Amino acid sequence: MSLDKVLARIDADLDQSVSRLMALLRIPSISTDPAYAADCARAADWLVAELQSLGFDASSRPTPGHPMVVAHGGQGARHLLFYGHYDVQPVDPLALWHRDPFDPEVQDTPKGRVIRARGAADDKGQLMTFVEACRAWKAVHGTLPGKLTLFFEGEEESGSPSLIPFMKDHAAELTADIALICDTGLFEDTTPAIVTMLRGLLGEELTIRGPDKDLHSGMYGGAAINPIRVLTRILGRLHDETGRITVPHFYDGVQELPEAIRAQWQALAFDHAKFLGDVDLSVPAGEQDRTPLEMLWSRPTAEINGIWGGYTGDGFKTVLPSEAHAKVSFRLVPGQDPDALRGHFRDWVRAQLPADCTVEFHAHGNGPAGVMSVEAPAFDAARQALSEEWGKPAAFVGCGGSIPIAGYFKTVLGMDAMLIGFGRDDDLIHSPNEKYDLECFHKGIRSWARVLARLT
Amino acid sequence: MSLDKVLARIDADLDQSVSRLMALLRIPSISTDPAYAADCARAADWLVAELQSLGFDASSRPTPGHPMVVAHGGQGARHLLFYGHYDVQPVDPLALWHRDPFDPEVQDTPKGRVIRARGAADDKGQLMTFVEACRAWKAVHGTLPGKLTLFFEGEEESGSPSLIPFMKDHAAELTADIALICDTGLFEDTTPAIVTMLRGLLGEELTIRGPDKDLHSGMYGGAAINPIRVLTRILGRLHDETGRITVPHFYDGVQELPEAIRAQWQALAFDHAKFLGDVDLSVPAGEQDRTPLEMLWSRPTAEINGIWGGYTGDGFKTVLPSEAHAKVSFRLVPGQDPDALRGHFRDWVRAQLPADCTVEFHAHGNGPAGVMSVEAPAFDAARQALSEEWGKPAAFVGCGGSIPIAGYFKTVLGMDAMLIGFGRDDDLIHSPNEKYDLECFHKGIRSWARVLARLT
Repeated sequence: MSLDKVLARIDADLDQSVSRLMALLRIPSISTDPAYAADCARAADWLVAELQSLGFDASSRPTPGHPMVVAHGGQGARHLLFYGHYDVQPVDPLALWHRDPFDPEVQDTPKGRVIRARGAADDKGQLMTFVEACRAWKAVHGTLPGKLTLFFEGEEESGSPSLIPFMKDHAAELTADIALICDTGLFEDTTPAIVTMLRGLLGEELTIRGPDKDLHSGMYGGAAINPIRVLTRILGRLHDETGRITVPHFYDGVQELPEAIRAQWQALAFDHAKFLGDVDLSVPAGEQDRTPLEMLWSRPTAEINGIWGGYTGDGFKTVLPSEAHAKVSFRLVPGQDPDALRGHFRDWVRAQLPADCTVEFHAHGNGPAGVMSVEAPAFDAARQALSEEWGKPAAFVGCGGSIPIAGYFKTVLGMDAMLIGFGRDDDLIHSPNEKYDLECFHKGIRSWARVLARLT
Repeated sequence: MSLDKVLARIDADLDQSVSRLMALLRIPSISTDPAYAADCARAADWLVAELQSLGFDASSRPTPGHPMVVAHGGQGARHLLFYGHYDVQPVDPLALWHRDPFDPEVQDTPKGRVIRARGAADDKGQLMTFVEACRAWKAVHGTLPGKLTLFFEGEEESGSPSLIPFMKDHAAELTADIALICDTGLFEDTTPAIVTMLRGLLGEELTIRGPDKDLHSGMYGGAAINPIRVLTRILGRLHDETGRITVPHFYDGVQELPEAIRAQWQALAFDHAKFLGDVDLSVPAGEQDRTPLEMLWSRPTAEINGIWGGYTGDGFKTVLPSEAHAKVSFRLVPGQDPDALRGHFRDWVRAQLPADCTVEFHAHGNGPAGVMSVEAPAFDAARQALSEEWGKPAAFVGCGGSIPIAGYFKTVLGMDAMLIGFGRDDDLIHSPNEKYDLECFHKGIRSWARVLARLT
């Protein structure tokens, strides 16, 4: 069977695959620091050369920021776009690294062999799993594994300022049947996962004003309303005793999880005690009739991300302040309309204002939740391929946060995305001593070979 | 009648009294700024010379800070101590003054003649009302109006660091039958007032901690408890719907106002609409079954003076913070035990903490409320004297804040104090363009002559 030959080739070539990854890891492509602009361009050029050597029509495309790498190649009925990013996070604080972040090394650890370097997991190592799968396929078959477009960004760690304009300007060549994104992780170390639900986000800032100037609490305390009192009173009611959010219409449109997904999640060995224990907590704080995974992946939330008012310095000042402020955000799930919800929240705040107070709102960003059409055959095919490689059923999972690129593929190019990645929770991405497990790199390459065998 | 002669003498000598006050106002005795230390000493010396010229045994007493002025004189059955302060606030921002703050001038304004200068009302003008009353008395009678000790401080505007040690070191000569303090105001412009109730103060700072590090609300939101949510939930319950404070035992020991005082307060033309309207409010925010004057003078309060947590800068950060903070203070009334109350508040907070959160308290200052023994005949005598001068019944009033000197006379020297002053709300003390109404200065001198005629 030809897939077996590809997998055998991957196994045999692993040391060389690691060597190639290490060459890429040696390029300090820190996108946020202009001092490393030439290194970013060099990383792009390195990838272009690698892809050209595999037969891709690859080029580095200039942008107002760092270049994009776009490569086309292969033939097939289904056009797949693969996305990754070659830029990395800064390395500060450098003193906490045990070795040069850009001098990669394979190290033995109690938990297995790791590739240690900035970008090993985020995202150079993950990006290279796909490239190495293509390489093995080419070596065995002489052709690429289907009609492929590879799209590597160099600004993911610095806000992707060029991404949307570039996607719009190059929509024709970037639009495929489905996008594959390799920038996520396994579920709990050994269970492969495809992220199919992403929560949206709505941000609000509010300022409550009472007296027209700061007052002295000796002079006015008792008779004058204190805006902090009003703010805490309102926000203190944002959740009821069971953790449910009290804003009217907040749950309008929120749907129950499909049974198939619910069954998959129940089968997942999610250790919520460890998840919370890692941050010194023990009791899930969301709706008490929901499981922790539901709280994180499929249920909306309301959080006070910041609050301030009055005197906050050292010592004490008996001020009765003129105003008080908070930043509140909502994680949204499919079915919730961000604009409508903003209105409901504001109505709810206004309805609780005492006569003498006013409120001013400032809208921060909002984005709807994302949900992939998992009924598309590609999702089931990928799931089977991952299950075979890892020896455990792959799961369609949710993601509590937002992954903007997935939304952009949907809104700019009109295509669904499958988010498949092989990172682990202890990879220390964005932190000192980042690593990528050799097993993840190896099985990641094999996973893509299996996925591509089924999808193309 | 000899009092009439004294009053006539005061009227006749008013221009000279103003001239003398202006001489004192020309000395820039800013106590908080070391650059003015020599000026503070000069103000003290100026007062010593004035008092000596009236026959007092007066001297400037060195302290580690600015000197105290102590003067003894006269004979009588009742020993009275008079307190004032010769130091003044800084004058920043100087650009907002319409003339040199230390070049005093008598000005005509739509509301009458004023003496304009830093310190005119706080406290040089008020202090001099007593000195000028003594002068007129001496001119008419050849003696001082009773057994008097005058005690002028030079550090009142900079925290009075030398005050308590000096009082302790000179307790014998400073202890009198009663203290007279001239550093307060009239009630609503034309009603004389004696402050007989001062609220106390208790300060608490609390920090609520949840997760052991700041979390990302995408990753943890919904499952991890947010300390700001806990803080707002607890503090949002500090008052009930009627404005009453919900901490158990908070009202333990709080007594209803004596009927005589209640009747006086009801007779006061307190314009609470104007009081609140001046700061753009309209609805009294305290206990709804209490009058605004009760809220301010005789009822305890709870205020959140500061609150902070999470991200408070520009833009937005979806942080789920590790901790949240607040500063809370309580204005206390007679009968409340500050130490017990601190414990009740802490118990109340702890009882509402979720399992995963901890709270840390930091105690800020506390001082009990003060209440004078108005049954002492001196209070009624002073009240009658003031009523005669102003043509309106003088009131025993409360003060929402604390006036430390009154507490020190009680706790260090064991004597009650009568707080009698002639300031008006628009005197701009501590602000640019401070003034003292000529009428207040004039009738203030006359008031003291009348009070002294009855007290000594």
